[in-house]
This record gives sequence, structure tokens and C-alpha cells, in this order.
Amino acid sequence: MVKTHPMWNNFPSIQRLLLECLELIIEKTTIENKEIEQTVINMIESQGKLLRPAYFLLFSQLGNATQEAHKKIIAAAASTEVLHLATLIHDDIIDESSMRRGSETVQSKHGKDVAVYTGDLLISVYFDLLADATDSVDIIKLNTQSMKRVLMGEINQMTNVYNTDITYTDYLKSIKGKTAQLFELSCYEGAYLGQCDPEIIEKSRSIGQNIGIAFQMLDDILDYTQTPESLSKPVLNDVKQGIYTLPLILGLEANKEAFLPLLNKGEDLTDSDLAALVSLLHENHCIERARAIAQTYIETALTSIDKLPSHPEKDVLYSLTKTLLTRDY
Amino acid sequence: MVKTHPMWNNFPSIQRLLLECLELIIEKTTIENKEIEQTVINMIESQGKLLRPAYFLLFSQLGNATQEAHKKIIAAAASTEVLHLATLIHDDIIDESSMRRGSETVQSKHGKDVAVYTGDLLISVYFDLLADATDSVDIIKLNTQSMKRVLMGEINQMTNVYNTDITYTDYLKSIKGKTAQLFELSCYEGAYLGQCDPEIIEKSRSIGQNIGIAFQMLDDILDYTQTPESLSKPVLNDVKQGIYTLPLILGLEANKEAFLPLLNKGEDLTDSDLAALVSLLHENHCIERARAIAQTYIETALTSIDKLPSHPEKDVLYSLTKTLLTRDY
Repeated sequence: MVKTHPMWNNFPSIQRLLLECLELIIEKTTIENKEIEQTVINMIESQGKLLRPAYFLLFSQLGNATQEAHKKIIAAAASTEVLHLATLIHDDIIDESSMRRGSETVQSKHGKDVAVYTGDLLISVYFDLLADATDSVDIIKLNTQSMKRVLMGEINQMTNVYNTDITYTDYLKSIKGKTAQLFELSCYEGAYLGQCDPEIIEKSRSIGQNIGIAFQMLDDILDYTQTPESLSKPVLNDVKQGIYTLPLILGLEANKEAFLPLLNKGEDLTDSDLAALVSLLHENHCIERARAIAQTYIETALTSIDKLPSHPEKDVLYSLTKTLLTRDY
Repeated sequence: MVKTHPMWNNFPSIQRLLLECLELIIEKTTIENKEIEQTVINMIESQGKLLRPAYFLLFSQLGNATQEAHKKIIAAAASTEVLHLATLIHDDIIDESSMRRGSETVQSKHGKDVAVYTGDLLISVYFDLLADATDSVDIIKLNTQSMKRVLMGEINQMTNVYNTDITYTDYLKSIKGKTAQLFELSCYEGAYLGQCDPEIIEKSRSIGQNIGIAFQMLDDILDYTQTPESLSKPVLNDVKQGIYTLPLILGLEANKEAFLPLLNKGEDLTDSDLAALVSLLHENHCIERARAIAQTYIETALTSIDKLPSHPEKDVLYSLTKTLLTRDY
């Protein structure tokens, strides 16, 4: 029995639709190879937050799509999560991550061969769901462009690994691609396929982008402030792998000399080095300053949502976004 | 300046179209990251045989498509090569191959991070080219199904690694997916988008499948009969990695006891073990028998081509297929 993340218990109408998406994903990834099939099912059952299909569905509900379009809406919403899962699996090959969502990663448990093919299989399912969801090749085109931008964000991040000269601009460019692009696509596609008014369709992109940027910034802040137990993944993993995110970039921009002796150790950072790094971040107020920057994106998103035409589901969109972007989990 | 494999010098009309495909692929993979961009350009310049777009183009020329469709035809033909390149790059991550087409592989030269992302980028370009080539979501759907079947073939092969109980049926199933599926798609899509007569469209699939099966069988036979210099890739690489192909499967089915002492060494096969294995294959007439099986697929394909309605380009299709399937390179 598939379940959603408990956060959705407070939003039952969306929860029901998200369960339909999950069941469709499992149906679409039914294949002869049981190891790979089970790998996908395990990811689905690990109760990710399903934010991309949720935003797709929330925007689609602001529109005028008929009940006949229901199956197509679910297929397109599901496709956003499938692309997300594919990128997670392929990223874990690159990061050599051992844990994700509290479970061992695909490549750690089954080897990189299974991880490469499972990711590729999910990419084929992603386009398969899209072809079920729309008769418009333009939507396919939009998705190929989005997928390319997501990859460009990942590649950009990879290029800046262990780069102590990385700037806020570099960081913003990476996260706009690797994270915000898929939020932007989900909101826009939901509004478009849900047949929203042109005003909503037009604003959906920037709302999605701001939510995505804020979400990634908060995730990067949590990496420095949470314990592994509460976050269900290794903490301070990024910095060990040379991925320098917002708090650290603010530290480097403000007081590079203080951070360099630690960062120059590259992958040889010990636990006590990491503790020293966290102390330095606090001394330089990097966490607070990162939170303040994330806050500007949160407020821009909430203000734009608030200005959308009145609709019963608008309050859910506002409330969810506020909850999500003020979370400490 | 992009060039094709010299085999195309004898087929100038197809060569010209293949060059257009290659230029389009390079244009579509122009990205900010120069390492990845160059990686794709290097693959294009390494002069692969371009068989998938060639069969697409040969079938499309048997049809009635107007000159206005030219750009779309080129885009769809290019897409078949792009999917092929993506699978080659991801396969090399799994095989940990160091050589491909006489050059170092992407993962050996640039690391698996670049290889994962370059393959993913090519998959996005594959669907992007398709969205340029057609207004029909059915063609997208057809391609998602084909891509899935290609992956299932690869996964099936992976499952049978070091399996000394592997049968001819298992082998045929793998190569129908990993190789023949994309030949089948290329022929069918060329016939369909080239607006061929229904009779040709109908026969294109099985012709493509038979060509693909024969091509893979011949490739697997060459792995046991050629030197590295003539084949531009390491020879006897498959068996070291536990991938048992047609000649060896015939040997195992006929005289398993003779082969087991060698194969039970798994990845520890020495050069003298490999030489002993090749001698055993010859003693058991496995190479000749494999050639005879491949020959049945070649003849079926050539007979079907011969029966197609008369058309000037039909002779090129026949002649190319005959050349290709009797090659010793």
C-alpha cells in the first residue's frame, strides 16, 4: 500500500491525487526485471515530499479543465516526479552517495549498472507519461528544454566542485537549473494543462521559480543546521564533496582567509574540521544571512500567489507554500 | 570539418544527408560546458558507421515526402543516432570500457560524472529532435516504447552476466532489445515519416529487426575473430566481462564441460585462457555455426528488401545491406 509523506495528511484533496500519481508511476515502471522494478517501488515508498506533482496539481486546480482531462492531468503531474527521481538516481552515482531519504541509495545497494539503467528507464517513462498527457508536441518540446536546463544546472554545479572562488551568482545559476527549473515547469504545466486563465499561466512560471530557489536554499541551510536523524540523510555531505552552497559561499565572499585553511583540505576534511567549519559559519552570521536571502524568495512567491485571482484552492497553494518554506525538517 | 566513415564514400547521396544529420547533432549539443560539448563532438568525429540514420534515410527515400519535409526527415534521422550515442556512453560506464571506436571512452577520459550527464543530455536532445521532426505525439510514444525496449535488452544482458546456463533464446531476446529494436525503429520511422506506401511501412519493421539481429551477431563473431587494430576496440572484451555471446553460447550448448573450467575463472581469465577459449570455439565449429545463423537473418532481410516495390533507391538499400552484413571490419 503506497502512502504519501505525512505532511500531506493536512491536505487531503491533494493527497488523494498524489496517491493516484504514485500508483500510475508504479504501473508504468512494471518491468520484467524485478530488481529494477523493486528499486523504483522502494523509492516511491520512501515517501518523498512529492512537491513537483503537488505544485502541478495545485495550479491545475485553479483552472477550468473538465473531469475528462483528469487522467491526463495525473499523468503529467506524475511525469514531473519521475524526472525528479531519475535525476536523483543519476546524481547519486556521481556523488557516490550512500543514503537518500533515510534509505540506502540505488547505486550503493545495487551497483552503478542498475542505477544507470533505472535512471534511464525513468527518463523513458517520463516522456511516455507526457505522451499520454498531451496531444501537443509543444509540451514535449517544453519538457526537453526543461530537462536540458536541469542538466545544465547539475553540470554547472559539477564544474564548480572544490572551487573556493565560487560566487553567489554561480550558485544561483546552478540552483535555478538543477532545482528551480522543475518547480517552474511543474507550476506552468499544471496551469497550462489545467486550462487556467492566461494571467495565472503567465505568473505560474515565476512563482515556481521563486519557490524552487527558496526550497533549495532552505535545503542547503538545513544541511548545516540539522542532525542526520531529523533530515534522514548525511549532513555536511555537500561540503565534503566540494559542493559549496549558500551559507559557505556567503562566508567565502565575506571572509575567505578564515575558511581557506579548512577548505584547502579538500576531501580530507575530518569531523573536527567540519565542526570548526560550522562554528566559523555561525561566527560570520552566514546561516542567518542565508535565511534572510531565502526569505526574500519566499516572500516574492507568497506575494505573487496572494495576488492571483480569488479561488478556493488558492488558499491551499498559499498555505502549503508557507508551511513548506518555513519548515525545519 | 565533420566527416563520415569512409564506407559512405560509395553512397554519396546518403553520405550528404548523413553529414546534415551530424551537423544538426553538433548544433543541438552546443552547450556552455565545453568539456561535455567537446565530448559529443569527439564522438561524432570518431566516424561511427551511422547505420541507424542511414537506414532511416534509405527507407524515407522510398516514400513520397515533399522537399518541405526535408528538415524534419533529417531531425528524425539524427535522433536515432543520438539515442544510440547516449546508450553507448551509459553502457561504457557499466562495462568500465576504456576504448570505443578507437578512442578512449567518455567515462575513462572524463570520469563517470561527465559520462552520466553527457548521456542524459543526449537523451534530452533525442526527444528534442523528435519534437522538431513531428507534430504527432504518437511518434513520441513510439520512441518512448522503443527506448524502453532497448533498455530492457541491456538490462537482460546485465542479468545474464557470467551465467554459464545462458541459452540462445536469452541471447536473442537481449540483442532484439539492445540492438535490433533501434534498427527496427529507424527503418519504420523512416518509412512512416517518408510517407512510403503502406506495404513498405508494414515490411520496414521486420526488415529492420532482421538487419539489427544479423548486425549484432556479426559484431559478436568479430569479437572472437579480429585483432584489436582492425576493429578499433579491445577484442574478447565481452567474455572477460561475463557477456557470453553467440559463438560461446553455441559452444556451451553443445559441449558445456569443455568450456566450464575456463569460464569458471570469471574475471580472472588470463590471455592464455582466452587463447584456449578461442581454440575451443574453433574445435567445436562455433564460429562457423554462428556465421550460419547470422546468414539466415541476412538472407531474410535481403529477400524482403528484394520484394519491396521497385524504386531507384531500393538498389542502394539492398547493396548497402549486403555490404554491411558481409563485412569483416
